Amino acid sequence: MNRITVSSPSNIALIKYWGMRDEQLTLPNNISLSMTLSQCVSLCTLAPLHSGTPDEILWRTREGTLVPANASLRFGIEYHLGQLRQHFDHWQPLRIATSNSFPTGAGIASSASGFSALAMAFALQCDQDCDAARISELARLSGSGSATRSAFGGFVQWPGDARQLAGPAQPFAPAQHWPLCDLIAVVDARHKKVSSRQGHHLAASSPFYRTRLDLLPDRLNTVRQAILNRDFTALANAVECEAVEMHMIAMTSQPPVFYWQPTTLALLERVRQLRGEGLQVCTTMDAGPNVHVICTAQHRSQVFAALRSLPGVVRWIFDQAGDGPRRLEHHLF
Amino acid sequence: MNRITVSSPSNIALIKYWGMRDEQLTLPNNISLSMTLSQCVSLCTLAPLHSGTPDEILWRTREGTLVPANASLRFGIEYHLGQLRQHFDHWQPLRIATSNSFPTGAGIASSASGFSALAMAFALQCDQDCDAARISELARLSGSGSATRSAFGGFVQWPGDARQLAGPAQPFAPAQHWPLCDLIAVVDARHKKVSSRQGHHLAASSPFYRTRLDLLPDRLNTVRQAILNRDFTALANAVECEAVEMHMIAMTSQPPVFYWQPTTLALLERVRQLRGEGLQVCTTMDAGPNVHVICTAQHRSQVFAALRSLPGVVRWIFDQAGDGPRRLEHHLF
Repeated sequence: MNRITVSSPSNIALIKYWGMRDEQLTLPNNISLSMTLSQCVSLCTLAPLHSGTPDEILWRTREGTLVPANASLRFGIEYHLGQLRQHFDHWQPLRIATSNSFPTGAGIASSASGFSALAMAFALQCDQDCDAARISELARLSGSGSATRSAFGGFVQWPGDARQLAGPAQPFAPAQHWPLCDLIAVVDARHKKVSSRQGHHLAASSPFYRTRLDLLPDRLNTVRQAILNRDFTALANAVECEAVEMHMIAMTSQPPVFYWQPTTLALLERVRQLRGEGLQVCTTMDAGPNVHVICTAQHRSQVFAALRSLPGVVRWIFDQAGDGPRRLEHHLF
Repeated sequence: MNRITVSSPSNIALIKYWGMRDEQLTLPNNISLSMTLSQCVSLCTLAPLHSGTPDEILWRTREGTLVPANASLRFGIEYHLGQLRQHFDHWQPLRIATSNSFPTGAGIASSASGFSALAMAFALQCDQDCDAARISELARLSGSGSATRSAFGGFVQWPGDARQLAGPAQPFAPAQHWPLCDLIAVVDARHKKVSSRQGHHLAASSPFYRTRLDLLPDRLNTVRQAILNRDFTALANAVECEAVEMHMIAMTSQPPVFYWQPTTLALLERVRQLRGEGLQVCTTMDAGPNVHVICTAQHRSQVFAALRSLPGVVRWIFDQAGDGPRRLEHHLF
């Protein structure tokens, strides 16, 4: 059996992608910037099936059992697969299995890692050129904009060229440049009530959205410079502003969307205190209640010691800046 | 002894006053609108002292003991007194005692009730015309803009005339028109870290402030109409938007100001649920973590039954729409 397996990382946005110019084509309204993670990865194994048979879409549980994918996962994969097939004009039925290294349904976005893994595995299956920029463009066909950034390691901007919204993401510093840590505080493991997609759709209904878009070019510049100079203070201020602002846009959308929960706020407050005490640490949140606590490797133990007893955190996941997707020689089936 | 005592209510803003055009003169950047409360009141007793003696500024404790006012209260009263004396050219030394019907330091703004009481008592002391519009203008001399609204009962707008920022507040519906309830959830009884005054000062540093000011005329109209029509759904939507937006301006100020606490968010969420279940209830917050749960008299018991067990609420205060300040014949000394 000609199996292909890819491992691809998730990422955490330091400048958020929020709101789309074109929902059909998944074109963003603004440039986003993320740090690729190393521990939160998705695996995807593909193998061709005989023509005429239906696709088989499987999910590997944490216990290692292959089970049929649930409706939501199946829908996402079938949609992406349809787009990839059209793109490559390659229609052979497939057996597909995916799994996540991180707890499923923990509120950690798995679309970035999952769809970038599927994009790369599919391209390899078609014997196509598989450079990262290509994977990035193919990943966007899933409808998940953040998946474009997972095609690269380190610090990544999407779109890489502001004039080409449909273009690929672009890395601008490798993980080794500044191996920041990400302590992920899982506050609520339930499925969020308002999907990122719905949130994107509502973004422009916030009367403050236009101002946000106007502010972002300067902020992008600030965050890029902070990363290039390894200036944690500058990074922390910009990244915290950015996350609060994205959530403000959500909270002032019509209807409003509230992703924050009480523990989210408690973590934000405690981390601000710790930074006031001199630790290199800041927070950011995607479209959900979980908090990514970003800190330098040097201060990681102190930060965790101060946060671990905070009530309301269901689980901690320890991650850090990492590399892009890669092909593996061990398979899910 | 020629004592004069006034009881004056606090109020809860449904459209917030946030940011000043002139900090010296306490001129607002926008029209605010509030509901005067009936249970949260301040008392102020004045009596003249012999010329040449210093003012005596007292505080009546919950236990009924008169003690010297603490530094912060003394400063506020002395400042206002200085302004009133200049205004009336009336310089006789005074004995002043004040007290609050609501727990002091519970995070319930006492400046609105306290300074409107002092303004009225001082004017009476000077044998001056004491209509409510006059009290409203005199109350503003304290530096507390919200005190201008406490000069009237019911639903009150300040400034009453948009073209006269230095003009008085104006009532537009009496409390009896729509006797809404306000269940005040005290979340944190500590003194807030960033005063309202500092918050006002920072407001314009939010890049979103200009947009907020542009939105307010329409919102004012919506809230006024909702009150005139007793349309709770329209009121709830506008009032919740408004409060979130004011806090959003604070959270995006430079430096950011976070008044919300975990329990604040828990209350917001729970009340949205209750409204979804059909109860006439909504939330608003001033510059602090406490939540005012506004509801119709009809649904008050059900609302409280659903909220009373929420952890993190230090104390509940039950209030409702009420009348303006009045002279009392029993005195604090």
